[in-house]
Amino acid sequence: MNTLVQTTPWQRITEELLLIVGSSGLITDESESLVYECDGLAIYRQRPKLVVLPTTTEQVAAILKVCDRYRVPFVARGSGTGLSGGALPLADGILIVTARMNQILDVDLANQQVVVQPGVINAWVTQAVADQGYYYAPDPSSQIICSIGGNVAENSGGVHCLKYGVTTNHVLGLTVVLPNGEIVELGGAVPEMPGYDLTGVFVGSEGTLGIATEIRLRVLKQAEAIAVLLADFTTIEAAGETVSAIIRAGIIPAGMEIMDNLSINAVEDVVATNCYPRDAGAVLLVEVDGLEAEVPVLQERVSQICYAQGARHVRIATAAEERLRLWKGRKAAFAAAGRLSPNYFVQDGVIPRSQLATVLKEIEQLSQRSGYRIANVFHAGDGNLHPLILYDQAVPGALAEVEALGGEILKLCVRLGGSISGEHGIGSDKACFMPEMFSPADLETMQQVRSAFDPKRLANPEKLFPTPRTCGEGAHHVNAYPQVEVF
Amino acid sequence: MNTLVQTTPWQRITEELLLIVGSSGLITDESESLVYECDGLAIYRQRPKLVVLPTTTEQVAAILKVCDRYRVPFVARGSGTGLSGGALPLADGILIVTARMNQILDVDLANQQVVVQPGVINAWVTQAVADQGYYYAPDPSSQIICSIGGNVAENSGGVHCLKYGVTTNHVLGLTVVLPNGEIVELGGAVPEMPGYDLTGVFVGSEGTLGIATEIRLRVLKQAEAIAVLLADFTTIEAAGETVSAIIRAGIIPAGMEIMDNLSINAVEDVVATNCYPRDAGAVLLVEVDGLEAEVPVLQERVSQICYAQGARHVRIATAAEERLRLWKGRKAAFAAAGRLSPNYFVQDGVIPRSQLATVLKEIEQLSQRSGYRIANVFHAGDGNLHPLILYDQAVPGALAEVEALGGEILKLCVRLGGSISGEHGIGSDKACFMPEMFSPADLETMQQVRSAFDPKRLANPEKLFPTPRTCGEGAHHVNAYPQVEVF
Repeated sequence: MNTLVQTTPWQRITEELLLIVGSSGLITDESESLVYECDGLAIYRQRPKLVVLPTTTEQVAAILKVCDRYRVPFVARGSGTGLSGGALPLADGILIVTARMNQILDVDLANQQVVVQPGVINAWVTQAVADQGYYYAPDPSSQIICSIGGNVAENSGGVHCLKYGVTTNHVLGLTVVLPNGEIVELGGAVPEMPGYDLTGVFVGSEGTLGIATEIRLRVLKQAEAIAVLLADFTTIEAAGETVSAIIRAGIIPAGMEIMDNLSINAVEDVVATNCYPRDAGAVLLVEVDGLEAEVPVLQERVSQICYAQGARHVRIATAAEERLRLWKGRKAAFAAAGRLSPNYFVQDGVIPRSQLATVLKEIEQLSQRSGYRIANVFHAGDGNLHPLILYDQAVPGALAEVEALGGEILKLCVRLGGSISGEHGIGSDKACFMPEMFSPADLETMQQVRSAFDPKRLANPEKLFPTPRTCGEGAHHVNAYPQVEVF
Repeated sequence: MNTLVQTTPWQRITEELLLIVGSSGLITDESESLVYECDGLAIYRQRPKLVVLPTTTEQVAAILKVCDRYRVPFVARGSGTGLSGGALPLADGILIVTARMNQILDVDLANQQVVVQPGVINAWVTQAVADQGYYYAPDPSSQIICSIGGNVAENSGGVHCLKYGVTTNHVLGLTVVLPNGEIVELGGAVPEMPGYDLTGVFVGSEGTLGIATEIRLRVLKQAEAIAVLLADFTTIEAAGETVSAIIRAGIIPAGMEIMDNLSINAVEDVVATNCYPRDAGAVLLVEVDGLEAEVPVLQERVSQICYAQGARHVRIATAAEERLRLWKGRKAAFAAAGRLSPNYFVQDGVIPRSQLATVLKEIEQLSQRSGYRIANVFHAGDGNLHPLILYDQAVPGALAEVEALGGEILKLCVRLGGSISGEHGIGSDKACFMPEMFSPADLETMQQVRSAFDPKRLANPEKLFPTPRTCGEGAHHVNAYPQVEVF
């Protein structure tokens, strides 16, 4: 007979995980797990019960088998730069950190593909192929720190997504560990495999379907030439109309960004580019790329369209240093907004491009009605808005009012045929807004698909979809927003 | 009390369907349903029990509710041009023909979108927007007759998919009737909606997840200039290497097609283009498009690469008439193959582009070992092969040998990291080959997703996935291949 030893389930789970990852791969100490209690949406905080740091697909599979057996929920975390609380841990769950899965497994330039582990940093992919003239296109502002695994979970974008698409357009295949610990291959080395496109379902699923442990990425050839144009307009509506006119002319710039007068003055106060005119209603930044023979034609056409739409002046930069200078203000926009006000709340919504002028007018009305100033900075080509609501958290009730205002902006986006998230994801932050956008039948279909991958609801539960606990009667939506530098 | 009337379930189903679509929308007569007994893969034939021709989403929903209530399986059919038997009816099932759902519902050029019913013909979409300078990119060879609904089911491609992508890259949103009759919206007017990308799952699901009744398509601006190059090589391997060299140079042509010596001589016999040299090992057709300023640069670079890779001659056409002349031989290739032999069997497989030379050598070896001549015509840029196996059906046993040889080619594609279907789909034809490509766990995950949409397995059962009845012990795979003109 064995000696009876009384152990709790968590003790047994800990022992089993130790056998899988060793003591260096397991964090049980509360002070050590502190660093993992939140992601880029820093106001939601929760320490996980255990933190595991696997290095291989097999270790992840073994860990998820333990989770499945004990019915313990898990959350995967890359670099923790997400802005919607998608990597927020669970008090009674395991946090699986992919930081040690940081190997580039294969570089196959003949087929323009790179296979990486999920902890590989976005910028490393480009670094691995740049000397051969290639790059990885999706470029979130956090690209020097964010992980590919996180990019896959959030279907991350960036300023060049207008022409080159978001993460899902660059993921060819995935090795995925399902929540029951089974390993499956989705997609592969050739595009458009038969059967259902489960690669596409997994990308952007915000950690709710399993953990990707190998990711096959497409890399692109670098453009021969690039030009950046900065056009200034007396009204933001004119800048918005110009975006539509450029697209209508058959030109697809690599990126198109708009900043309004409030943002322009904030960045000139802080970084003094001396390029952004303080009296402009808005500036429009346009980047075009392509062949040496093509870019001069494109920049000339874009410039003509800007003038035809009422631009006062169009500045064109082709040399790298001068291009960076024009981008500098845009890149500093969020940090600069922090100077305008003690706090700001950044919203992320999308509208069809044709609705740009309408949405801007309505946001202005919402601002006037509520008394809160709103700075507008956005990926205009994609219709992806980032309104920054300025407020002071020290004023009682301000946060709740600002949250309500942010919600009004999301509902406005939906009403105009758009979306409640452009690139930051739903996560913990916007799950309660999903019914604004999807019918009960639409959401139920998604839940059925979720059950196909995760019948026990162990993979990042309470994210992405509304739950009675987080959005039902009596759920109190406490929130505040950090001043982080995002794009 | 009601009078007791004994009716069979099919009588009751017929009555219920009559109430939904009226007598003009229902075909019960066997002679009238004859036309629906097969699709482009004409050798599989089966008359359906009933044929219904709805006109609206609501009618489709009502029909599927009847199917759900009586547990009657259904198959959707567009124009019936599919080449894998995806629209093959079931003896005890309902065939839902979308031919009367032929309305273009919305044209929104400001957002480059068109909303259509599924019976709209592919070419009509371009016709609806061409005068404004737009077009719909996916161009299967059957585009003047195939329906958008069928294109969505099969994720159809075409010769311009190398640069512009296949159907899934051009579908933004879908109204779908689920097999239980519920109506859901997948995707929408803006790309990259939050939640799971179910639009992507539905496109290419070959009718197994429900019926798309409204389809939101992206349309593109027409290119300013186009050039077609015809390069002739002494070996097909050199033509294959040239394809890789062009891509390596950072050029993405609109299309790249290769034809081998056998195909060249067949088309010159039949259509006499007088452009394709009869002594060439292979010809490579390259189409480049873009700005007026860009195309001359691209054509010059492609031409130089062709010569550097050993091309004997490169012919360049920019005028529309001359471009069509260079394309003429390629377009006639399949029809011409019919002259080489009493019958031919067209295979559809994919390999990574880097494996082109290898796969061609191995196909040549398979040809020599089996004694069957194989003509090679393919979308080389995508690695999408269409080997044509020439045979005579009158020779006893020939068909079975050719089928086996076709299967060997598919296995070869999988072994080289490729796929068993490039663009014709799996349907009835290749379901038994799915386990060559996917592990049991991979297939099980797809089945789970299928159950999320269709728990009762009413939507096009026995297609796409292997079943014991069609692929198990004792299943007899009888087949022969029609001589249809495909691209």
